[in-house]
Amino acid sequence: MSELPLAAIERIIRKGSGLRVSDDAAKELAQYLEDDGVRISQQAALFSKHAGRKTVNIDDIKLVLKNK
Amino acid sequence: MSELPLAAIERIIRKGSGLRVSDDAAKELAQYLEDDGVRISQQAALFSKHAGRKTVNIDDIKLVLKNK
Repeated sequence: MSELPLAAIERIIRKGSGLRVSDDAAKELAQYLEDDGVRISQQAALFSKHAGRKTVNIDDIKLVLKNK
Repeated sequence: MSELPLAAIERIIRKGSGLRVSDDAAKELAQYLEDDGVRISQQAALFSKHAGRKTVNIDDIKLVLKNK
């Protein structure tokens, strides 16, 4: 956990809500977005390997998001 | 856009995939996660206001994620 900086997450919440943001709200959203990013990347890796690559590229990510 | 640092997103993709990551893959995932964060925050703001608050708190975020 804790890859995403809370200051950035707070800006995202302020942008979306137009309101102030509590610290624990930012932490909760950061954790969710990071976990979701890991899940997406796990699926993307299956597509990378299926295509015979050792690098995750944009098409792998797009393919996961298309089916989300 | 561009709130989330690409270095952090690359670490998340490496964590999830165990593979290398192209720059455009990281940018694609960063954009998705940021857009999703904004959407979640828009919904959370409705719950904050419904509860008579001017601050988004952790319960607002949890309520959005529960119904996602």
